[in-house]
Amino acid sequence: MAEKLSGVYPILSTPFDEARRVDVESLEREVEYLIEAGVDGLGLGLASEVPRLTEAERDLVLDTLVRVARGRVPVVMKSDADGTDLALHYSRRAAERGATALMVMPPPGAPAGGVRAYYHEIARQVGRPIFIQDVPTAPVAPALAAQIAAELEHPWYLKAESPPTAPRVAEAVAAGGARLTVFGGAHGAFFVEELRRGSVGTMPGALVPEAYVTTWRLWREGREADAEAHFARYGTLLRLLAQPTGIGTYLVKEALRLQGVFRHAVVRAPAVRPDELAYQELRRQLDGLGVRLS
Amino acid sequence: MAEKLSGVYPILSTPFDEARRVDVESLEREVEYLIEAGVDGLGLGLASEVPRLTEAERDLVLDTLVRVARGRVPVVMKSDADGTDLALHYSRRAAERGATALMVMPPPGAPAGGVRAYYHEIARQVGRPIFIQDVPTAPVAPALAAQIAAELEHPWYLKAESPPTAPRVAEAVAAGGARLTVFGGAHGAFFVEELRRGSVGTMPGALVPEAYVTTWRLWREGREADAEAHFARYGTLLRLLAQPTGIGTYLVKEALRLQGVFRHAVVRAPAVRPDELAYQELRRQLDGLGVRLS
Amino acid sequence: MAEKLSGVYPILSTPFDEARRVDVESLEREVEYLIEAGVDGLGLGLASEVPRLTEAERDLVLDTLVRVARGRVPVVMKSDADGTDLALHYSRRAAERGATALMVMPPPGAPAGGVRAYYHEIARQVGRPIFIQDVPTAPVAPALAAQIAAELEHPWYLKAESPPTAPRVAEAVAAGGARLTVFGGAHGAFFVEELRRGSVGTMPGALVPEAYVTTWRLWREGREADAEAHFARYGTLLRLLAQPTGIGTYLVKEALRLQGVFRHAVVRAPAVRPDELAYQELRRQLDGLGVRLS
Amino acid sequence: MAEKLSGVYPILSTPFDEARRVDVESLEREVEYLIEAGVDGLGLGLASEVPRLTEAERDLVLDTLVRVARGRVPVVMKSDADGTDLALHYSRRAAERGATALMVMPPPGAPAGGVRAYYHEIARQVGRPIFIQDVPTAPVAPALAAQIAAELEHPWYLKAESPPTAPRVAEAVAAGGARLTVFGGAHGAFFVEELRRGSVGTMPGALVPEAYVTTWRLWREGREADAEAHFARYGTLLRLLAQPTGIGTYLVKEALRLQGVFRHAVVRAPAVRPDELAYQELRRQLDGLGVRLS
Repeated sequence: MAEKLSGVYPILSTPFDEARRVDVESLEREVEYLIEAGVDGLGLGLASEVPRLTEAERDLVLDTLVRVARGRVPVVMKSDADGTDLALHYSRRAAERGATALMVMPPPGAPAGGVRAYYHEIARQVGRPIFIQDVPTAPVAPALAAQIAAELEHPWYLKAESPPTAPRVAEAVAAGGARLTVFGGAHGAFFVEELRRGSVGTMPGALVPEAYVTTWRLWREGREADAEAHFARYGTLLRLLAQPTGIGTYLVKEALRLQGVFRHAVVRAPAVRPDELAYQELRRQLDGLGVRLS
Repeated sequence: MAEKLSGVYPILSTPFDEARRVDVESLEREVEYLIEAGVDGLGLGLASEVPRLTEAERDLVLDTLVRVARGRVPVVMKSDADGTDLALHYSRRAAERGATALMVMPPPGAPAGGVRAYYHEIARQVGRPIFIQDVPTAPVAPALAAQIAAELEHPWYLKAESPPTAPRVAEAVAAGGARLTVFGGAHGAFFVEELRRGSVGTMPGALVPEAYVTTWRLWREGREADAEAHFARYGTLLRLLAQPTGIGTYLVKEALRLQGVFRHAVVRAPAVRPDELAYQELRRQLDGLGVRLS
Repeated sequence: MAEKLSGVYPILSTPFDEARRVDVESLEREVEYLIEAGVDGLGLGLASEVPRLTEAERDLVLDTLVRVARGRVPVVMKSDADGTDLALHYSRRAAERGATALMVMPPPGAPAGGVRAYYHEIARQVGRPIFIQDVPTAPVAPALAAQIAAELEHPWYLKAESPPTAPRVAEAVAAGGARLTVFGGAHGAFFVEELRRGSVGTMPGALVPEAYVTTWRLWREGREADAEAHFARYGTLLRLLAQPTGIGTYLVKEALRLQGVFRHAVVRAPAVRPDELAYQELRRQLDGLGVRLS
Repeated sequence: MAEKLSGVYPILSTPFDEARRVDVESLEREVEYLIEAGVDGLGLGLASEVPRLTEAERDLVLDTLVRVARGRVPVVMKSDADGTDLALHYSRRAAERGATALMVMPPPGAPAGGVRAYYHEIARQVGRPIFIQDVPTAPVAPALAAQIAAELEHPWYLKAESPPTAPRVAEAVAAGGARLTVFGGAHGAFFVEELRRGSVGTMPGALVPEAYVTTWRLWREGREADAEAHFARYGTLLRLLAQPTGIGTYLVKEALRLQGVFRHAVVRAPAVRPDELAYQELRRQLDGLGVRLS
């Protein structure tokens, strides 16, 4: 990896047909739609429902992404597991099929020593940049991420998603130094605040890539106030999309359907379905933002 | 209780001096500031750091609030505890000192039967309206709240704070019927979406009461789009204030200090302190919203 | 399923070789060893490290178990997942390969409605008896299990593992009636207390099957005091084996190695390894109980 | 503190009368009963339902204990709280009323830096030996306890209650060195295994003090096998008493009632009550162990 990964790396939504099978054509359109919007990379993660896919489906989704991306942007694949051996299996498979980098949550309930060994073994055996994923249900403290990075030279990234993410980024940047590159996540809600504290990218959802792409461009041009003002326009929409238990996942898919990217807005169960009002709220936001619907 | 409680009930921030003692004068100003802003009620809760106060301090804070409020608005006091007897002790004391209503989280880890008995005993013995507080770390499912209300006639309220709060409100309104009145909470971030689903009030933080008061007025006038547009202006500020681990608590107090309401912006430990950038972000938002600083 | 499953159903330990691959020969010996000890059924579950196996390894382990068991005892296969579709995939595969019944934990974080739909869909589509697995990290309250069973006729079992398990069994037996058959689990530590409250079997670990088999026989013969006295002999050993974070898993495998059943006592990472003292404590207990070591 | 605390420090059960008020006479008998049994110290903690007592009741219970103990044994008082200031309030009050040492859980949800500052401030301001209490719901990793002890010279103790406790003790002894003295807890179930790894005492429940006192004496006499054999006799009883959600708390009180120590076996709500079978199981164990009932 000669160059550092940075910028806007949306996590794809996985489209399903009415029988809840992967809808490859919609997925192809989604990849194209995001690349055309100017994203810097693409990922498959929690928002892609990866933990709800069979191994064959994981392959199918990643293969489709790699095939359509044609090397135009780097591809990040979630490959963690309950145990090291299964994470190695997913990680090797992802690397063989063309993933540029891996995204890896810590194994649940493991003590710090076990977490470090897990990351080091994946790094050593698979040889791909690793995004250490830090989420509220499986946090990786900045000090632990920094220790993992200090103990083994490797292209280490941290995707900081435990709130509050802005100080989390600041802490990780301070602790990790040159050996740890920090991205934000958690729907990108604190994108600008994170950039201000040293993050170099974000992994938001698949919707309104222009919100992030333009903010990122303005930021790099040194137009901080413009970046902030641009991003603030999307605040209400992003708040709606961040609703947990499935509602946000449904809404992102519905918006992609309304834009002609997805054929269906199906989420794998169990997931709480939005009510009719929520769909109206979504539409009103998209209208207000001038998002072109098909 | 002849009339139902409704509208905007901010939860006070508790001001401390530099020795971390309750600063009564600042508290007096805060109560006056919120009542002048047109709030419908006032409360002491988690955001008031009630679980970090001694019994004497709980009394002092409530007494001050009741004294300054002079009956102009109802007063809600958090009075839950690990066990029923201690919750009864807090609740009786709150009632004796003038609290209009109680706010009560379920005891940690109790099975549903124990939770119901706990609420019923407080209702029977203390005779004040009760806000059943539903938070992510101690959730009360809408069905359970509805059952509590169905089994004992009493002025029952639910403060729905487990995300996503908007569908939580809808579910509670449907399940609880006329016996359960539903408020929102969780920093009021989904205030309008909650109103749309049947809530009749919210318990936000002590900052920018005008955000909620005006939204609530517009809503009651049937001007839904105006309500939504007005509220959206505060989105970025509320996002910053909702940051957990102490950061939001510090920022609210700092803003009250900048407005001349608080003398100090001291939070009781342990609490993560915002960095210098966060204070700048706060000031920029307040400036942008035209909040008058002293 | 003409007949109800009941009795002692140990959960196999999965033997690995030094490269952490499944050691089929040791697994064959383990199945034979347990059947010879007189167990009533065999299962693959959490203690088998199923969540740390690839799909191919799940197949290999289940195939080996079915092949060696030759129909002498029923076989239960853990087949839950984060989502319904993946659980259906695992469940169908298990059924096709010869599992008599499925063991299914609820999906993490789903509301009650989603949990019920998940179980009902697996029951309808796969047509095998289902053990609803109730563990502290993913509890299924007895009332919810009873509701699942009441809403759809099916051979429903509950494996009650949320402590305290004895009253959990009592509650489930009362709530579930004839439509829900209750087993104990959680290392079988409360086997006799559970039987007294209406359970008809247990799913302990793979070690000292004679502890459970003899207790179960004495219990059915109406010799309650003898059953209790027999079981109490194993108290200290079972207490050592129930140690979490990996230590118990290592000790069970070490004991099987000492008995000549396993070639290695390898546990998949991350797992905390017992110290030298723990191995000595294990050996002393096995010696004291007269367990024949090879 | 000239001398290190060590040995058997039972945590008192708090007796309540039928109106759920503290029953001082029963408490006096309990203190006397335990001192006569030869315990080395006494404590008030979670098993004493301290978090369910008012401030006046905390004082009453501690005063009674100190008065009856008459300096014959050291007295440990739980004095933690959600925040540092309230913990200081409880701690000062405990020290003024005669507590020899404090037992302090970390504040919920605080990051490591906040936890360290909290312990250091209590140590500096109150000047009593501190037992850092490490429980599953609020764990203090051995490395963190060791760091707290390394950063400030003070009589630091760790009460290791996060399972598995035996390796937890070993890790704490290794990390803490001479600055951290390690006790076990968690109903004392792993008393001998903990001693073997360097603990110097335990804080069990108030029942069968002879189990611990004799084991401790045999251990100090170098009669390890006898200690282990003696302790094993109580395995089934301790397993019953360790049942969570209130059942164990009820059973301990019932046993004290049967022994003539308590007048009532009342537990503060919410608490799950044992069924009739559980009381029979308790009685059978007490009979079998030759515990003299009144």
